[in-house]
Amino acid sequence: MNGYRIAVIPGDGIGGEVTAPTVDVLRHLADLAGFEIAFDQLDWSCARYQETGAMMPADGLDQIREHDAILLGAVGWPGVPDHVSLWGLLIPIRRRFQQYVNLRPISVMPGLPGPLSAPGEVDFVVVRENVEGEYSEIGGRFASGTPQEMAVQEAVFTRAGVTRVVDYAFDLASTRRGHVTSATKSNGIVHTMPFWDEIVRERAERHPRVEWRQEHIDALAAKLVLQPSSFDVIVGSNLFGDILSDLAAAVAGSIGIAPSANLNPEGEFPSMFEPVHGSAPDIAGKGIANPIGALWSASMMLDHLGEKDSAAALLGAIRTTLAAAEVRTPDLGGTATTTDFAAAVQEAISL
Amino acid sequence: MNGYRIAVIPGDGIGGEVTAPTVDVLRHLADLAGFEIAFDQLDWSCARYQETGAMMPADGLDQIREHDAILLGAVGWPGVPDHVSLWGLLIPIRRRFQQYVNLRPISVMPGLPGPLSAPGEVDFVVVRENVEGEYSEIGGRFASGTPQEMAVQEAVFTRAGVTRVVDYAFDLASTRRGHVTSATKSNGIVHTMPFWDEIVRERAERHPRVEWRQEHIDALAAKLVLQPSSFDVIVGSNLFGDILSDLAAAVAGSIGIAPSANLNPEGEFPSMFEPVHGSAPDIAGKGIANPIGALWSASMMLDHLGEKDSAAALLGAIRTTLAAAEVRTPDLGGTATTTDFAAAVQEAISL
Ligand SMILES: CC(C)[C@H](C(=O)O)[C@@H](O)C(=O)O
Ligand SMILES: CC(C)[C@H](C(=O)O)[C@@H](O)C(=O)O
Repeated sequence: MNGYRIAVIPGDGIGGEVTAPTVDVLRHLADLAGFEIAFDQLDWSCARYQETGAMMPADGLDQIREHDAILLGAVGWPGVPDHVSLWGLLIPIRRRFQQYVNLRPISVMPGLPGPLSAPGEVDFVVVRENVEGEYSEIGGRFASGTPQEMAVQEAVFTRAGVTRVVDYAFDLASTRRGHVTSATKSNGIVHTMPFWDEIVRERAERHPRVEWRQEHIDALAAKLVLQPSSFDVIVGSNLFGDILSDLAAAVAGSIGIAPSANLNPEGEFPSMFEPVHGSAPDIAGKGIANPIGALWSASMMLDHLGEKDSAAALLGAIRTTLAAAEVRTPDLGGTATTTDFAAAVQEAISL
Repeated sequence: MNGYRIAVIPGDGIGGEVTAPTVDVLRHLADLAGFEIAFDQLDWSCARYQETGAMMPADGLDQIREHDAILLGAVGWPGVPDHVSLWGLLIPIRRRFQQYVNLRPISVMPGLPGPLSAPGEVDFVVVRENVEGEYSEIGGRFASGTPQEMAVQEAVFTRAGVTRVVDYAFDLASTRRGHVTSATKSNGIVHTMPFWDEIVRERAERHPRVEWRQEHIDALAAKLVLQPSSFDVIVGSNLFGDILSDLAAAVAGSIGIAPSANLNPEGEFPSMFEPVHGSAPDIAGKGIANPIGALWSASMMLDHLGEKDSAAALLGAIRTTLAAAEVRTPDLGGTATTTDFAAAVQEAISL
């Protein structure tokens, strides 16, 4: 019997409210499908930071290095600066565990009207480089407090780092509709973006069956709104992928329920799965958060672990429950609680 | 009598097709309103580069330094790398003439349906920092041709540079609906974006009548699609402003006809006005390009020169002609030529 050990980091605010029922649903799926799954709950969070001065223990990453995956709720809380919560938890996990692919599937969910009048068939994936690029600690201030003051920021793109994420995107496209769009800005950003383009061209040659094109990020953002159905796999740098994935989820009407996977594709380190939404202080503690982002992320986790049937069954159950439109949380116009909705999904699972 | 001397750079492809009738309309307006306007045509372009090896003469910028404004068509042509055409013409003009504000008004034009099902009242302006930030020559390659190869890119934000563009945005907002949204990414980009935020907060204090908020670029891109009517003035760095202004024009349904101004607000150097569209090799030479972007940019030029009534009359005539929906170029479903449309606008001018 396959067995998995999952590190659960509920985090802050509604993070715990959405991960708790997600864990229940996963247990149920394990029973149905016949695999074992065990969960270790970790209190890493802004709350912990406010008590102890650290988002996670000093040996935190070692504690979860051997786990099969990480399920994260949401991190961030008013009063704790973003750079503390992110660079103290989320970003170190992504980087130390070489989760170099941030994967965000974008599709229109049944019964969720998006903002576009004619979206067409929207079904694509954003592959975001997740550990290097524009997000970097390199740089600083010069001449603080003077009129000459300036800040510089170094973006770092490595051949190995770009190659692996671009290869991932081409491989993924070859299992889908066979098309990659690369986000660039080589007309404005002189050094790193032409380098990115060069590597994309090289890797494209190794995937002759996959078509590809590149688009400047400004035109690409516009095209996501004008022709969202024209994309299959979009690959972008850390910053461009971040922007495009939120924008794309908005276009598809799924910004509040979107999932994400931070993948270490080789499986050398655990991958991390997290809903895209934040800790939502305004509704935290009320039990009304929409758990779809967490459940959908859990489906991506099962897929990554190799439990393809369970992954598909869970995603199918989310779709069925949304389409039935009987049980909905307040953000979607209903009155259901978080656990009501998760229970409805659990019931809809057929394996 | 006020008199103006305008440098016209038609550039490549449809650039000349849209600037020519725009110059005619400007002459007509000058007659009506009683000011003088003279035009110097310059052949700076990719065509020139292919003949002479340079986009413009070595003393090009000196030739136009004393002009009152620059009207540009479009620059770029297949076979000439972007970095040549942009860093050889457009970007030096922006930088040497301290055109530190790139202004892009976003509004829904009559009779042009956009992609959104319920856009609401869309009427805002993107103020983009235009001479520093992420677009920089600083950086390069390391270990070319080896597995260790990498490229770095330095973004440079100066206190003076950020302050002046942020002040411009707050001043502009105070003449509009009194609200500024600042684009940031201080949770991911560690050095320059917190610096940007800090300066925005400082300048906001000097404009107590203007409300403001900041949004991370990923969430802001999503909100442009979900709530475009919630914006008045958006201010962003060179890269963020570039992305947001194209995205916003797409949302408003005006990507093909959008205008832009590259402003040196102090008037120490000439400002430059250019349609957002490119040289459009596919339709170049056919005389069917839509001149609205160029005409609208010319209206912004008149406004900048102080000819407010003429500026308003030209913009009004564009709106009237669009609303009448009798004369339209093929991109908008009609059969009119570029000059037909410009002539209709000219006829609709009432001063
Ligand atoms: C062509 C390119 C360099 C340019 C820019 O990004 O500045 C264009 O996108 C624009 O917005 O004027
Ligand atoms: C919170 C922030 C640093 C993060 C990111 O940009 O990576 C978030 O936007 C995301 O997409 O996971």
